[in-house]
Amino acid sequence: MVRPDWIAVDWGTTRLRVWAMQGSEVLENRSSDKGMGSLSRDGFEPALLELVEDWLGDQPIPIIACGMVGARTGWAEAEYRHTPCTPLDPQRATRPQVNDPRLDVHILPGLSQIDPPDVLRGEETQIAGFLAQNPDFEGTLCLPGTHCKWVIITDGRVEGFHTFMTGEVYALLSRQSVLRLTIGDAKPDRVSFLEASAQAATNADMAAAGLFPLRAAALLNGLTPEQGAGRLSGLLIGSELASAHPLWHGRRVVIIGAPELSSLYAGALTQAGADAHQLDGGELVLSGLTAAATALTRNT
Amino acid sequence: MVRPDWIAVDWGTTRLRVWAMQGSEVLENRSSDKGMGSLSRDGFEPALLELVEDWLGDQPIPIIACGMVGARTGWAEAEYRHTPCTPLDPQRATRPQVNDPRLDVHILPGLSQIDPPDVLRGEETQIAGFLAQNPDFEGTLCLPGTHCKWVIITDGRVEGFHTFMTGEVYALLSRQSVLRLTIGDAKPDRVSFLEASAQAATNADMAAAGLFPLRAAALLNGLTPEQGAGRLSGLLIGSELASAHPLWHGRRVVIIGAPELSSLYAGALTQAGADAHQLDGGELVLSGLTAAATALTRNT
Repeated sequence: MVRPDWIAVDWGTTRLRVWAMQGSEVLENRSSDKGMGSLSRDGFEPALLELVEDWLGDQPIPIIACGMVGARTGWAEAEYRHTPCTPLDPQRATRPQVNDPRLDVHILPGLSQIDPPDVLRGEETQIAGFLAQNPDFEGTLCLPGTHCKWVIITDGRVEGFHTFMTGEVYALLSRQSVLRLTIGDAKPDRVSFLEASAQAATNADMAAAGLFPLRAAALLNGLTPEQGAGRLSGLLIGSELASAHPLWHGRRVVIIGAPELSSLYAGALTQAGADAHQLDGGELVLSGLTAAATALTRNT
Repeated sequence: MVRPDWIAVDWGTTRLRVWAMQGSEVLENRSSDKGMGSLSRDGFEPALLELVEDWLGDQPIPIIACGMVGARTGWAEAEYRHTPCTPLDPQRATRPQVNDPRLDVHILPGLSQIDPPDVLRGEETQIAGFLAQNPDFEGTLCLPGTHCKWVIITDGRVEGFHTFMTGEVYALLSRQSVLRLTIGDAKPDRVSFLEASAQAATNADMAAAGLFPLRAAALLNGLTPEQGAGRLSGLLIGSELASAHPLWHGRRVVIIGAPELSSLYAGALTQAGADAHQLDGGELVLSGLTAAATALTRNT
């Protein structure tokens, strides 16, 4: 019988992941597809209980959650803390009302920035996890995904950040625009990727100008789906690097994300002259949730 | 009873439009939603007959068609003529096999360009229509739409052209990305549009960097859907202008397309210092089809 002393929860738009924890030790972990995006407000507590109920004893147990569960359309809106600031302040977590008195839920705040306007939810916990393991890091974290977050770290704090929608733009263009006829679900060819990212990183104009030529090159010159995927990805990531230049130029960059996508960012950044390193960030979120749980216990 | 001596056909991806013609005079016109995109190869002849059968007499009648009907996935593939060249050469039309001997169908060729690779189908006929009415024009035609075509005209010929996917990118981002929560079907606010297009026209980086801030500004600063739509459209069209700079800078530009979208391009171009004029291009395609029919009659 698993009896954790707290429960860690990573609740994103599409997935719910939970860990039964004893201090920093994982007793068991589970997940479901009941992400925030598929739930109405009264669906959150049942979705959580479905995964954790047999871990509960008689007493209330701390449940530390991060991610889109704290969005305006989530379980309960968690605030955004304004940068510059430390990534986490669990004292400012939101406590949703619950029906089951054994659930003592804390939803961690996200981060916001006034100019340029930006927000994040969930990544603050990954950042805290990274800093728990690398307390002296100074530089930039690059977190690729549907949206890519560039986060400037100074003295253990988030100085500022910038979100690019590159992953989502790639998915829409490759699968739903006219380029679906050329690319679809093909895997990016790395040579084509590096060539296009080098062009777009030095000339961001390329991104707009280079899209339709992919379709035309498939019709006229036999461009393959993999080459098309590589060039599209290269144009988009390259123009992201051009825009994000002040965020990585002359700074140490650590890339944290899914291995394939991270490897594309690492290749493009290195080619552009950056000091970039890839890190498997698989359980950083758990490390951040553990840091939050420790801080809460210490303060209560 | 309508008895045309030829039939004009504009057959795009989503619409089929036909005109019963006597020389350059329109006797009647009709349309249906049987665009190329919804038809398999053996569906074209029935879709055409549905609209024109009662116009047919005993003898074969010339039917002059342009647009995506000539695509590889259309009725019969029409060739691409390589630029630089005149917009039309009806002698090189493709003649699909037909079951009804009264149909003498000519599908006009499109245009292609080797470097950068590009293609168009249908616009060549609009261009021919424009040149039939403005034979001495020297400058650039800008044809906004789902895809925007910039066409360089010199001495009655198409010197080169460049396609931007701006309209399609706008539709995908505003309705299907996370920005749908901020923008959706809102109409672009013109002040926001002009401000964003000015920024992106001088700094194409803005397009990638400026997307997610629209979502954040809606969450944090109360950006309205109309302001969001204006800014998104401005970022995308502005970065198109930055990329297309050599195509319009120091040249006379005529914008031909749907009035609302054309007016955005006209505003952004004028603000960027271009000599740009809007033209209602409603029936240019018919004027081009008429020029093709005249040339065919003269040569047979």
